[in-house]
Amino acid sequence: MPDAPHRIAFPVYYEDTDAGGIVYYANYLKFAERARTEWLKEKGFSQRALRESEGVLFVVTHCDVYFRQPAFLDDVLDIETQLRECGRATMTMHQRVCRAGATLAEMTVELACVNGAGRPTRMPEAICAALAE
Amino acid sequence: MPDAPHRIAFPVYYEDTDAGGIVYYANYLKFAERARTEWLKEKGFSQRALRESEGVLFVVTHCDVYFRQPAFLDDVLDIETQLRECGRATMTMHQRVCRAGATLAEMTVELACVNGAGRPTRMPEAICAALAE
Amino acid sequence: MPDAPHRIAFPVYYEDTDAGGIVYYANYLKFAERARTEWLKEKGFSQRALRESEGVLFVVTHCDVYFRQPAFLDDVLDIETQLRECGRATMTMHQRVCRAGATLAEMTVELACVNGAGRPTRMPEAICAALAE
Amino acid sequence: MPDAPHRIAFPVYYEDTDAGGIVYYANYLKFAERARTEWLKEKGFSQRALRESEGVLFVVTHCDVYFRQPAFLDDVLDIETQLRECGRATMTMHQRVCRAGATLAEMTVELACVNGAGRPTRMPEAICAALAE
Repeated sequence: MPDAPHRIAFPVYYEDTDAGGIVYYANYLKFAERARTEWLKEKGFSQRALRESEGVLFVVTHCDVYFRQPAFLDDVLDIETQLRECGRATMTMHQRVCRAGATLAEMTVELACVNGAGRPTRMPEAICAALAE
Repeated sequence: MPDAPHRIAFPVYYEDTDAGGIVYYANYLKFAERARTEWLKEKGFSQRALRESEGVLFVVTHCDVYFRQPAFLDDVLDIETQLRECGRATMTMHQRVCRAGATLAEMTVELACVNGAGRPTRMPEAICAALAE
Repeated sequence: MPDAPHRIAFPVYYEDTDAGGIVYYANYLKFAERARTEWLKEKGFSQRALRESEGVLFVVTHCDVYFRQPAFLDDVLDIETQLRECGRATMTMHQRVCRAGATLAEMTVELACVNGAGRPTRMPEAICAALAE
Repeated sequence: MPDAPHRIAFPVYYEDTDAGGIVYYANYLKFAERARTEWLKEKGFSQRALRESEGVLFVVTHCDVYFRQPAFLDDVLDIETQLRECGRATMTMHQRVCRAGATLAEMTVELACVNGAGRPTRMPEAICAALAE
């Protein structure tokens, strides 16, 4: 499973920064979620379709983030996303937020597949199969 | 209908500011929405209950905002909210964002009552009655 | 000055939506600001460089937005940005948020060039020249 | 140091939720930061004053969050904040996000005191003294 990480770049806009002059700490989680969404899209899945046709969504159950260096307005952030473990109803990802090769933040994210009532449920077969590749 | 405006205060946190050192322009609309929500609560209505029991929600259809002076980290913002017009399915509010009596921003907001499918629909009777008071 | 509008596309992520199932109204202003930033970059200007080397930044003084139709998770939004008027210290833009050719929101945005103390000031010559093209 | 936690309540507004119908995961970090700010204010310190008069600010270096149960629109969230460890230039806090006594999320947050250039620096004496109480 340790293949090359998925990569996507996002510029830093004013909305991402705060009066300290740097990217606000909670916003790294937004960049990470965008990257996970694009990674899933690349595997052929949209979150809206998962919710509407399969009745499931992924929720974050645990997030452990290290903030190493600040990011600034107009930086271009490269987000690396890698699947670490995948179970029947959960998965663990590792993500890094980089700028010009330097790691600014890195995090481990655990997600659970839940149904419309918010209960843990098995991932749809098609996702398991696509992720196993 | 021009009775005293509803008033509520919110402090400015890092999340509200940007790298320009001031409150990010879109965030004034968040403060305004919080104030409209509290104004409705004071009238006896919660947006969640409206959605769950009446199947309706209010959506903003038009928002005209003037930004007069910047707000800064740790400012306390007083939001004034006043109903200007109320129809069967729409209402118009006027809102001001103030600091120590000075107007920092002011806006006119038009809202429409919509059903679960997003179609314009009549406001529940109880709301009309409560707003007419 | 009425040349072709600048165009850029942004996907809608979970962060942009709210419990009504649609893009939160204030977030259209974030999409619009991203698009104005990319339009400026295309003209050769970064906001960080403007602030650091010229000591100026652009602040929104007036924003008049019409919300026509809702946007949903995983939509791809096309933002069109067009300069309408440009003075010595202010400019007026028109922006549209579209999906598959349909206008979801449109807005007129007035910006002022201010110095580090927040006072209105003339735009740097290079910007005037670049915008006049 | 294990005295009673600081407590503050915040309502959940539309801005805090996402299309999954629940509070967006990154927004728990906003609630936590608001609570840390109010805890500092209660000790007599404002972040703006710290930055302007002492030239220092606190940045988050590590955040480990468990999301136990979802929060919904119109919930009232009680944030508990407790100082766990305090060094010369860093501190560790434990925070819980609760609703009616149930823990929805809990996190350990490590902060570092940095100067205007972003370098780790000793906390001002007055803060050390106030936190030691």
